[in-house]
Amino acid sequence: MTRKKYIEDLLKNVNAEDGDKILVETKTLKKEGVLMPHHQFSNEDIITIKLDNGYNVGLAVDNETKITLLEKHKVVEKNSKTIPFDKNKPTVSIIGTGGTIACYVDYRTGAVHPATNAEELAFSVPEIFDICNVKAYVAFQMFSENLEVNHWKTLANEVAKELNNGAQGVVIPHGTDTLGYTAAALSFMLKNLSGPVVLVGAQRSSDRPSSDAAQNLISAVTVAAKSDIGEIVVVMHGETSDKYNTIHRGVKVRKFHTSRRDAFKSVNEPPLGKIADGEIKIFEKYKKKTPGKVVVDDEMNEDVAMIYSYPGLKTEDISDKKGIILIGTGLGHVPEKVFTKIEKLIKKGTSIVMTSQCIFGRINMNVYSTGRDLIKIGIIPGEDMLPETAFVKLMWVLAHTNNNKEVSKLMLTNIAGEISDRSKNIDFL
Amino acid sequence: MTRKKYIEDLLKNVNAEDGDKILVETKTLKKEGVLMPHHQFSNEDIITIKLDNGYNVGLAVDNETKITLLEKHKVVEKNSKTIPFDKNKPTVSIIGTGGTIACYVDYRTGAVHPATNAEELAFSVPEIFDICNVKAYVAFQMFSENLEVNHWKTLANEVAKELNNGAQGVVIPHGTDTLGYTAAALSFMLKNLSGPVVLVGAQRSSDRPSSDAAQNLISAVTVAAKSDIGEIVVVMHGETSDKYNTIHRGVKVRKFHTSRRDAFKSVNEPPLGKIADGEIKIFEKYKKKTPGKVVVDDEMNEDVAMIYSYPGLKTEDISDKKGIILIGTGLGHVPEKVFTKIEKLIKKGTSIVMTSQCIFGRINMNVYSTGRDLIKIGIIPGEDMLPETAFVKLMWVLAHTNNNKEVSKLMLTNIAGEISDRSKNIDFL
Repeated sequence: MTRKKYIEDLLKNVNAEDGDKILVETKTLKKEGVLMPHHQFSNEDIITIKLDNGYNVGLAVDNETKITLLEKHKVVEKNSKTIPFDKNKPTVSIIGTGGTIACYVDYRTGAVHPATNAEELAFSVPEIFDICNVKAYVAFQMFSENLEVNHWKTLANEVAKELNNGAQGVVIPHGTDTLGYTAAALSFMLKNLSGPVVLVGAQRSSDRPSSDAAQNLISAVTVAAKSDIGEIVVVMHGETSDKYNTIHRGVKVRKFHTSRRDAFKSVNEPPLGKIADGEIKIFEKYKKKTPGKVVVDDEMNEDVAMIYSYPGLKTEDISDKKGIILIGTGLGHVPEKVFTKIEKLIKKGTSIVMTSQCIFGRINMNVYSTGRDLIKIGIIPGEDMLPETAFVKLMWVLAHTNNNKEVSKLMLTNIAGEISDRSKNIDFL
Repeated sequence: MTRKKYIEDLLKNVNAEDGDKILVETKTLKKEGVLMPHHQFSNEDIITIKLDNGYNVGLAVDNETKITLLEKHKVVEKNSKTIPFDKNKPTVSIIGTGGTIACYVDYRTGAVHPATNAEELAFSVPEIFDICNVKAYVAFQMFSENLEVNHWKTLANEVAKELNNGAQGVVIPHGTDTLGYTAAALSFMLKNLSGPVVLVGAQRSSDRPSSDAAQNLISAVTVAAKSDIGEIVVVMHGETSDKYNTIHRGVKVRKFHTSRRDAFKSVNEPPLGKIADGEIKIFEKYKKKTPGKVVVDDEMNEDVAMIYSYPGLKTEDISDKKGIILIGTGLGHVPEKVFTKIEKLIKKGTSIVMTSQCIFGRINMNVYSTGRDLIKIGIIPGEDMLPETAFVKLMWVLAHTNNNKEVSKLMLTNIAGEISDRSKNIDFL
């Protein structure tokens, strides 16, 4: 018998259903709380209960665990809610992809679920109906670390369809782990945006008192409904308090903290703007939305790797790909020991782009002779692009040309705001 | 004839020597200035001249380049300087390794050279003789991206020798590219420090008006001579102005900017302290220097790689090593597609440690089921260690045990301050 079946039987034996108050006793502890539905992101042997203090705990069940039913939940009439429509308001499309922000709190039990239809997501933050009409659906439901190029393509096409069908803007709730990569990918895949495309995530799920899910979603929807931005942007908490959200350019933002709500920061340029109390303030130049059809150009060459440089990096660690993003040290260096291998790969047709593990600042391979040697070999200096953005861009560029000179030219051309103007006065840490 | 020989002949023909004023004419430009000695870090085909405005320019010489001697330099009596000694002052050992900070300005020509003996380096910043006696020598002269494990071992042994021979402290001028890696390596290799060991670098060489070399070296020597720290620390500019230098713990610091002088930041804990106007202020707890012998434990297993995770990471990108540092996403994730490969490697005896490309924050693999699955497979969660520090530590740990349980235990033990206390209130970006 699987562990899952064992737990289901255990609960059935005492007539305990989701929403009922139960007591769980194991060898080491005794906890009472409201039984939560099984979360698809939980392990099989876990029972989750909501404690009186509002927190959920997952308890591992073994063969000696005892469950007692304390109180049946009160039956609440399930509202047959429908999304309201106001013909005077713009319509924003919300395309769910999974992640912490896509987990909604069940109105009956208070449990956290991944929203399998976007109505659930939308209804978890009903404030958004005051801002606009909402058309919501789920494209896929995944941990963002598992997303791949085909998911970016799906999203690019869904976004174009929604905008071309009259949506004012699009919001994409997304797991935060690879949100920056997706934002960059969409920035290269989509042209002539007729409305804002806003990626948004949450660092803490809706059942936690410190959740950023609701405020982030409201701010994202506001930007999608009310701004005239024609770019891919990321809207996340601007600081740990709930004072404002920050609007980042999709190609210039990355996640810098594993758990803080203000984890996302723009790199090598200031954020585009912020949003506080429903008010959008834009400080930087941006591309305005354009009338007409959104165009999708989603060809990608997936044979691209990112390689982090470190002392002792060996030639065998640099594998044979169509494209490689080196995350070098300082101004753009890797150990001289691997130069010959790099030269061999470039001669065979690999395009290699240099970025820096410093993250901030610009690649400059003309300062030291080793850098100049790498340029001679044919390495493309990645300007001030984020390694992650350069990675996605190289996939896109290599799907459009095989000629190394042309690849170099495109990589050094500012296509979606990924290369900053040298004259910009840029904040740093 | 090599290009180098060609240039030497060209100069000899007009009797031009280092320090002479010359005119260089190429097809496209005409520049006059003082001929600089050939810099070992320059390419062969380059002539460097110092312009009247004080800047050096490197000019590429081809077969049509014309050189005219304008003025012979005045012969200056070469001072036979000797390093002063004051028996009332402590002695600090300076061990040169190369890098921008090790370039000194020649007192005669104003040219920038790598200091091949440390007197040159010391005399380029004579202020340090007011602070202490100086014993200076060059261990090696390299671009720091080319440093390897054997260089760390050399340094560890040199440091121990100096301290055990009575030095009050040790200063190691070092290229900034991999300065953080070396600081971490020495932190694990050296025990019972009887004095401060200070790594210091410069982002801009001494011939530039904005150079940070002198101030950084003075501050580093001050910390080595006057503090009672018994740890490996890094002393660098604290902000872009010249107001103060920051003292970072060697295992918690990394380079965050390709060119700014305040590029080094402590991660997941505040810097230990700062130094302004010669005054050292320590704010954080630190290990005090101990009497007795410094012990070197420099065994390292070099079969360790760092692998950066990204969307589409393939099993073939994870190679067979004794140790792997995964630089995962978010709280410590990699695509599920590579789980089987990871499990196979761990079963075969590879130790794999999870760190995060967020850089800031702590690994927590208990929040999502995918993280828990990785823990079950046997991945070691890297707490809040920097990926670079975890990399160096894993090399060191694997040289001391082959048992995966023991490796895990050591990786999760705070050996040199590399794992921060959870209760610390930590600054972020």
